[in-house]
Amino acid sequence: MTDLHDEARALDAADPLAEFRDRFALPDGVTYLDGNSLGALPRDTPARVAETVTGQWGRGLIRSWNDAGWIEAPARVGAKIARLIGAGADEVVVADSTSVNLFKLLSAALDLDGPGDGPRRVILSEPGNFPTDLYVAQGLAAARPGVSVRTASRDQVVEQCGPDTVLLLTHVHYRTAERFDMAAVTAAARARGAVVVWDLSHSAGAVPLDLNGSGAELAVGCGYKYLNGGPGAPAFLYAARDVQPRLRSPLTGWMGHAAPFAFGDDYAPGEGIARFLCGTPPILGMAALEAGVDLFLEADGPALWAKSAGLIDLFVRAVEARRPDARLISPRDPAMRGSHVSFEHPHAHAAVQALIALGVIGDYREPGAMRFGFAPLYNRYADAVAAADALADVLDSGAHADPRFARRAAVT
Amino acid sequence: MTDLHDEARALDAADPLAEFRDRFALPDGVTYLDGNSLGALPRDTPARVAETVTGQWGRGLIRSWNDAGWIEAPARVGAKIARLIGAGADEVVVADSTSVNLFKLLSAALDLDGPGDGPRRVILSEPGNFPTDLYVAQGLAAARPGVSVRTASRDQVVEQCGPDTVLLLTHVHYRTAERFDMAAVTAAARARGAVVVWDLSHSAGAVPLDLNGSGAELAVGCGYKYLNGGPGAPAFLYAARDVQPRLRSPLTGWMGHAAPFAFGDDYAPGEGIARFLCGTPPILGMAALEAGVDLFLEADGPALWAKSAGLIDLFVRAVEARRPDARLISPRDPAMRGSHVSFEHPHAHAAVQALIALGVIGDYREPGAMRFGFAPLYNRYADAVAAADALADVLDSGAHADPRFARRAAVT
Repeated sequence: MTDLHDEARALDAADPLAEFRDRFALPDGVTYLDGNSLGALPRDTPARVAETVTGQWGRGLIRSWNDAGWIEAPARVGAKIARLIGAGADEVVVADSTSVNLFKLLSAALDLDGPGDGPRRVILSEPGNFPTDLYVAQGLAAARPGVSVRTASRDQVVEQCGPDTVLLLTHVHYRTAERFDMAAVTAAARARGAVVVWDLSHSAGAVPLDLNGSGAELAVGCGYKYLNGGPGAPAFLYAARDVQPRLRSPLTGWMGHAAPFAFGDDYAPGEGIARFLCGTPPILGMAALEAGVDLFLEADGPALWAKSAGLIDLFVRAVEARRPDARLISPRDPAMRGSHVSFEHPHAHAAVQALIALGVIGDYREPGAMRFGFAPLYNRYADAVAAADALADVLDSGAHADPRFARRAAVT
Repeated sequence: MTDLHDEARALDAADPLAEFRDRFALPDGVTYLDGNSLGALPRDTPARVAETVTGQWGRGLIRSWNDAGWIEAPARVGAKIARLIGAGADEVVVADSTSVNLFKLLSAALDLDGPGDGPRRVILSEPGNFPTDLYVAQGLAAARPGVSVRTASRDQVVEQCGPDTVLLLTHVHYRTAERFDMAAVTAAARARGAVVVWDLSHSAGAVPLDLNGSGAELAVGCGYKYLNGGPGAPAFLYAARDVQPRLRSPLTGWMGHAAPFAFGDDYAPGEGIARFLCGTPPILGMAALEAGVDLFLEADGPALWAKSAGLIDLFVRAVEARRPDARLISPRDPAMRGSHVSFEHPHAHAAVQALIALGVIGDYREPGAMRFGFAPLYNRYADAVAAADALADVLDSGAHADPRFARRAAVT
């Protein structure tokens, strides 16, 4: 693999994003390929969080809701994320978790008038979608008489759409990294009368996004993956401007009220996207997320997407050169893929554990997939080849058979 | 008021909790009486949060979900809060916001079989309850055909209960600090067939609580007030052990699944209280909350409640001695009250702004109430007299009439 190492060195030397790696506090001895699950820590973040804790909370106390801009944080950070996903500043807010935001949007989408005679009654998704998406849909359906959840395979799911349908799709699949063509799917589903809710959890910060240009009306996304917002970072929610006035959140907490501080007894939805706020915003998590997004905004989008494609191309070639028994289950075409890549292998679970013990951190996803995320802000081409080498070394040597690599829990 | 100052000095000198004040990072020149809205910063918290950010996230990365106990944090911190509220360790989890948790429990309560013939159809509360409680109930009712929200005054609300009722009450009123007798109200409402959901936002850490002993079945509470968990801290949720198996959360995110990492397509509720988890837990906020709760657990409960009563008694006497036109709207009997106290006054809003400018921080609540919270962990008797003096000085001098004390937004 000497030629691949040489290639990696040359690519790293010419990488226009190389300087960003030093903006992250990556531990020595670790090759981190799990930024699709939990993004790395930006170097600026500890100071930003510390100032939020010690300065804003400790010294400012309650005054910081106004003086430190806490109350505007959901809209302010939302507007920054909007720049990354091709949305207007008034079309995104940061709030709650991805799961909770999905519940809000699915409920609101069911209530939207369709072109048919009756109400929307079907939440349609694909089998094997990220579990929380299916679970949230099922919980909502259980509480809404007449509503059911159906699934259809990804190549047939659009055909199953009708005027009674809310189509819920994850743009980039968490396991295989397969990517939907957002514009084409949205247009086809809408032509059949459906409303589409996109989950961008594995897309935001991973692939080019143009929500407005793609005709997307509703979407949610995650703050702790490629946006490097920290563990359990608050999530975001997108609603296109023209559809906002017709949307009703089922989670009508006070922060989504038109006049939260009038303390009236009757709910009235806030203007625009603000109606999707619910409880008091999580300020510490918001501070870390804002630091992650601020760093992301410094980078050039096309350079990021090109490097992601290059990292994965090199990694796949390096793995396949040494372990042809590792079966690629992700698209080879970067335009059809996210910024992670998965291989199935009979020893996938143990191999991932053995790699982690060596400091090469990817993750395992049921059933039988080794998943590796490539974050072009901080991953190097050298990491890609080193990880492939380590994987091949583990499998070649049988190191994965060590009993300490037995199963335990893990988290996306 | 010399005698009151002397009294305060004597009380502070004899205060068994006096040492706790140094465990908080209170700014110089501030008399902070708004811990009922945002608790003060414990001195241990910045280091705890910094370690979570720099050590656990930065160095541990994804491994910290297991190695640093992140995945158990909702149950672990919940079990600590359980000790403060008279609940079992397996009856409390930390998750989401108070508003979101209320939505979960109200929905679950509506689904509980009642002694009547039909389903539960009424969420009953009191007018003037904390707004988010009423708003969340209204949003839930709007999405559930046949369900309505009704209100009745606090002295009649129990009589209005029937077998179709979910009774939603805030244990300590956010504005007046009036406290319900939890055991008596729960027993009377249950005798009429109702299920009761308690909001403990202004109770937890403020007054003695014995949820098990009071027969309480369902409750939510806030982390950022008396528990000193930081701005927008995650909230908690209580469900009595014996009712847990019959409860269904409408927010069926993956963290509430029986096997979150099996990645199956079908939702199955987790064991017990875990079914009320939804999305990925907010780890930074959780770290700060845990630090606040840990500190609280060091203090002696009866000493806290006695000091709260003493602080408020002294404050009320000091205010009334100089400004009899300030009308106390909180109960004088500490057993009927929370740990805050409110006065109505024609210049309430401006007076509060003038006090804040002087570093005496209480808050204003519509309509016309000056609200002052007393946190016995860090407030001194001297603070009570100093704040009363400052209030009287402002009103005596007309300082509140300065135009810079015009209205602006504020947050509980």
